[in-house]
Amino acid sequence: MPRIAIVMGSDTDYQVVKETITILRKFEVEVDVRVISAHRTPELAFEYAKNAEKDGIELIIGAAGKAAHLPGVLAGISPLPVIGLPIKSSTMDGLDSLLSIVQMPVGVPVATVAINGSVNAGLLAVQVLSVKYPHLRDAYRKYKTELADQVVEKNKNVQEMMAE
Amino acid sequence: MPRIAIVMGSDTDYQVVKETITILRKFEVEVDVRVISAHRTPELAFEYAKNAEKDGIELIIGAAGKAAHLPGVLAGISPLPVIGLPIKSSTMDGLDSLLSIVQMPVGVPVATVAINGSVNAGLLAVQVLSVKYPHLRDAYRKYKTELADQVVEKNKNVQEMMAE
Amino acid sequence: MPRIAIVMGSDTDYQVVKETITILRKFEVEVDVRVISAHRTPELAFEYAKNAEKDGIELIIGAAGKAAHLPGVLAGISPLPVIGLPIKSSTMDGLDSLLSIVQMPVGVPVATVAINGSVNAGLLAVQVLSVKYPHLRDAYRKYKTELADQVVEKNKNVQEMMAE
Amino acid sequence: MPRIAIVMGSDTDYQVVKETITILRKFEVEVDVRVISAHRTPELAFEYAKNAEKDGIELIIGAAGKAAHLPGVLAGISPLPVIGLPIKSSTMDGLDSLLSIVQMPVGVPVATVAINGSVNAGLLAVQVLSVKYPHLRDAYRKYKTELADQVVEKNKNVQEMMAE
Amino acid sequence: MPRIAIVMGSDTDYQVVKETITILRKFEVEVDVRVISAHRTPELAFEYAKNAEKDGIELIIGAAGKAAHLPGVLAGISPLPVIGLPIKSSTMDGLDSLLSIVQMPVGVPVATVAINGSVNAGLLAVQVLSVKYPHLRDAYRKYKTELADQVVEKNKNVQEMMAE
Amino acid sequence: MPRIAIVMGSDTDYQVVKETITILRKFEVEVDVRVISAHRTPELAFEYAKNAEKDGIELIIGAAGKAAHLPGVLAGISPLPVIGLPIKSSTMDGLDSLLSIVQMPVGVPVATVAINGSVNAGLLAVQVLSVKYPHLRDAYRKYKTELADQVVEKNKNVQEMMAE
Amino acid sequence: MPRIAIVMGSDTDYQVVKETITILRKFEVEVDVRVISAHRTPELAFEYAKNAEKDGIELIIGAAGKAAHLPGVLAGISPLPVIGLPIKSSTMDGLDSLLSIVQMPVGVPVATVAINGSVNAGLLAVQVLSVKYPHLRDAYRKYKTELADQVVEKNKNVQEMMAE
Amino acid sequence: MPRIAIVMGSDTDYQVVKETITILRKFEVEVDVRVISAHRTPELAFEYAKNAEKDGIELIIGAAGKAAHLPGVLAGISPLPVIGLPIKSSTMDGLDSLLSIVQMPVGVPVATVAINGSVNAGLLAVQVLSVKYPHLRDAYRKYKTELADQVVEKNKNVQEMMAE
Repeated sequence: MPRIAIVMGSDTDYQVVKETITILRKFEVEVDVRVISAHRTPELAFEYAKNAEKDGIELIIGAAGKAAHLPGVLAGISPLPVIGLPIKSSTMDGLDSLLSIVQMPVGVPVATVAINGSVNAGLLAVQVLSVKYPHLRDAYRKYKTELADQVVEKNKNVQEMMAE
Repeated sequence: MPRIAIVMGSDTDYQVVKETITILRKFEVEVDVRVISAHRTPELAFEYAKNAEKDGIELIIGAAGKAAHLPGVLAGISPLPVIGLPIKSSTMDGLDSLLSIVQMPVGVPVATVAINGSVNAGLLAVQVLSVKYPHLRDAYRKYKTELADQVVEKNKNVQEMMAE
Repeated sequence: MPRIAIVMGSDTDYQVVKETITILRKFEVEVDVRVISAHRTPELAFEYAKNAEKDGIELIIGAAGKAAHLPGVLAGISPLPVIGLPIKSSTMDGLDSLLSIVQMPVGVPVATVAINGSVNAGLLAVQVLSVKYPHLRDAYRKYKTELADQVVEKNKNVQEMMAE
Repeated sequence: MPRIAIVMGSDTDYQVVKETITILRKFEVEVDVRVISAHRTPELAFEYAKNAEKDGIELIIGAAGKAAHLPGVLAGISPLPVIGLPIKSSTMDGLDSLLSIVQMPVGVPVATVAINGSVNAGLLAVQVLSVKYPHLRDAYRKYKTELADQVVEKNKNVQEMMAE
Repeated sequence: MPRIAIVMGSDTDYQVVKETITILRKFEVEVDVRVISAHRTPELAFEYAKNAEKDGIELIIGAAGKAAHLPGVLAGISPLPVIGLPIKSSTMDGLDSLLSIVQMPVGVPVATVAINGSVNAGLLAVQVLSVKYPHLRDAYRKYKTELADQVVEKNKNVQEMMAE
Repeated sequence: MPRIAIVMGSDTDYQVVKETITILRKFEVEVDVRVISAHRTPELAFEYAKNAEKDGIELIIGAAGKAAHLPGVLAGISPLPVIGLPIKSSTMDGLDSLLSIVQMPVGVPVATVAINGSVNAGLLAVQVLSVKYPHLRDAYRKYKTELADQVVEKNKNVQEMMAE
Repeated sequence: MPRIAIVMGSDTDYQVVKETITILRKFEVEVDVRVISAHRTPELAFEYAKNAEKDGIELIIGAAGKAAHLPGVLAGISPLPVIGLPIKSSTMDGLDSLLSIVQMPVGVPVATVAINGSVNAGLLAVQVLSVKYPHLRDAYRKYKTELADQVVEKNKNVQEMMAE
Repeated sequence: MPRIAIVMGSDTDYQVVKETITILRKFEVEVDVRVISAHRTPELAFEYAKNAEKDGIELIIGAAGKAAHLPGVLAGISPLPVIGLPIKSSTMDGLDSLLSIVQMPVGVPVATVAINGSVNAGLLAVQVLSVKYPHLRDAYRKYKTELADQVVEKNKNVQEMMAE
């Protein structure tokens, strides 16, 4: 069973991150969830990122808001692929979080998803892991089929609503 | 030898994308480079994305500017992980490209890097592949050491310049 | 009776799109309403756009939010004029939707209306159709007269309120 | 031969608008080109918009920059479909022009294209007219095929460049 | 008694504009309040602006939201000074209104105040009129003294609150 | 002969402000031009604004860039109408200057013109003064006629160019 | 006991500023709290800033919203370090306040913290004072340890929640 | 002689940072200049920040562009006051750098100056140090007098230019 980490900068991010956990569990990916702040607990962040690979973590999701340095800091330390999940905070509508995460300098990329894109952060992890684990490729393919079926269903509902 | 695709929406994107190709060749990743437009050649985009996986492609990098739909369109069709590289165009300083690529809806993520982040698009591909290929993990770790050495070297130069 | 299509990327867009439907029915334009996602059901989007013209559709309205690719994708496939309706989502106040729809590359335009401009998307469709159907030109001219009359009425109300 | 108007707010907009004229002539659409300012020559703008329909104009393209009111003003007066072409000026990177044109209030839409989207303004006009004139539909379909062929050609060039 | 006009583009703007009316009445400036839309009633806007000066109006305040053309349109027709009041609408947080009003081209300025700056629109009118009417200068000077006194009073309250 | 002040925050603003001076001299408005910084020479700013009215100044134009406080500071001290001219500086494309000038709090308005709107700052001054000085109203009306004539002339040139 | 000033532009800013006061009292820094408007009470602002240093104030925190000139005005007058706290107001999500405070011209810096960053404004004051007062350095170090402990505690809570 | 550190994320930042060094040397503040990347040399950043205080550094200036994490990372580790200098890079006009630096979470402030505000970063350091070192207060006061004198001189030049 593949294993990844979700590190959030604050426990207030949990309201968004819990959807990431849910989708990963649906795909039977083991998740190590942590609250570690790049600014308030820099040593913990350093240690966690330093050890992640040898602790069997295959990918890290970093979730943070405002001056969202956490994903970039983890990516600077660990060679593992890092997915950045920008959290919308009380000002600037998430633009600060997005730019702080996506605009990484040459050498240290962060794979950024949409602002508050909690489900997609999980799905991207699944896609990355599926490069190695064929059963996750199959599972994601099935998930996309279900998504498509839901759209078809919703389309039917709208058709019927129109016909009334 | 792992194999990925780089699809750009226009040949004018080549000035940016060529750095992606260079970094990937440095890591000895085989690259299938294509000019396919989501809007001008939608059937080709559809066909390419449809077949990529069975043609042995393990990951797709989509590069596009303005209303940059290409990475999202490819991600909608293929189950492979898709990296989005937003290209800065003549207006809006790349913000349009960034938002068009990163703000994907639930179900279909695109792993977005910085505006014109050509080298990082390639490095992120290496990191994703390194989940499966240990030699790429080693190579990326070595690359980061070289980067660090360069910073140390530059620091020395600045120290010397200061001492003069 | 002229016939157009309204394609929305998600059934959550219906809250905005229903005003487009209402205004088109007022003008007695037949509307084929669909929920088709460019990302979750790309094949359906492809098929629908491919067949729209020969199915008697004369114009397509595409409504979508966030990385709003749907109108551009439909415009890439069909030669019909496509109107893009940017839907405001939970972040970025609709700017992402607007830029993703309006900033189309050379060759494939999308006729974009205001963020959440549901009524105007319908009226623009009427105006486009009125190039061919004179009765729609007359109807739109009448609609504008009614709009003007309403403004005159509101002006009277304000005048009276001021006089009190 | 169908006939449309291109109205620009200033002769400095001509550098952008000339590409609109070129593409429309390629499609053999007759173009009445005018310099009329909504702010400096409001009466002319009023008169032109008032008479456009009965003078045989079937569609109006309005091009303007900064507080770009011209397309909206023309749309307020004439029942014809109006395409808005936002011109990038020396500040704000065209965002002011775009918002001033696209964010029209209920009742009076403007079909907005990309900032400096001169060719697309012309192509959108062709698409609108093609609702009435089948030969323009055919011509636009042919144009798209040529665009696609160009992409295929560019793809070949890039392939060859890669192979070297 | 000096006389000015307040023209709003829609009666929904009245919630903001009523504060402008209140402050102007406090200064005993006569106010002609109108609902006239630049887009829905262009002829009325044209007529009103054309006649304002000879009807004894000395200054016009134009209030509008979104693609807020009204103040600029009035300024294009009348030689009177025009104050623009950008109204915040449901999207874009008023930035569209602000840019549509303030970014006027050479020759036709609009004196723009803050987004939803209803009181300041009235006060700016008083200041402009005070160039001619000395009693308004005195009244505004007195108003500023009162404002200053209020700040001093609030300061006292905070001091006391701190001392508790 | 009416007399106004132009205060600029830095002599680097002179490249923009000189057009304001030129247009005001064309209208035979006497101009007192000053370089006074709200931040570097606050006492001078205070003194100048304090004395402006009794020194016969009837209106103040304040030009500044970046955190452009000068117009607001002058408006806080003097009861004269203050026109704010936002200067585009090397970053943020003038948005910082615009927001710093236009978003004034209740009680102290600044009549803001476009970013780098040097000519319009002068014309707005003329319009404000014309409330008191009828000859300036006539002069501005004549200026607008000339502007309109220029547009008509440019239109002719474009017509001829089209006919070739 | 070190002593600083907090100056807010309006008593409505108190809702944000009170957290600054609380944190400073926790660090036993004496706080002189004032409501002084740069625009409504410019003389008071001038006097306060002029005398602050000789009244024993060692640092000034200026809090303001919209066209937030207060911190910059105080910094122009006093040689003391000035911390700027941008307050989010009803439009523009605090971007206007931030840019008006941070974008200061050469010679007069303002140490800017996050939009509504009330606690951090106080902590930055503590850090600045700690250059002189070693007990504040110790106290801040202790505060950071407590912050880190809280993160560790929250991490534990999340771990437990995950284990359930 | 007081001693501070300037840490830049890349040697390309030196073009901006050199002005910070120059101004600090003018004030006879000793400067330890370093190139240390938060992302490429995280251990060095960690070590440097960890030891700065005991190495006699009294304040740190961190300069960085794009996703500018360096100042925040240093502030997370060291209790010293940290000044953040946002560097404008090739896209987004410095907005990404500004937001990444200024929007720090509760507990870890960064004293942010203007985008590319190199001189002000140095002056703010001088002001902070002047809380402890009275000679720096005197020197900054003298510097401000010189700045004011320069403005007065420039004003004279403009007056003379006007008189010609």
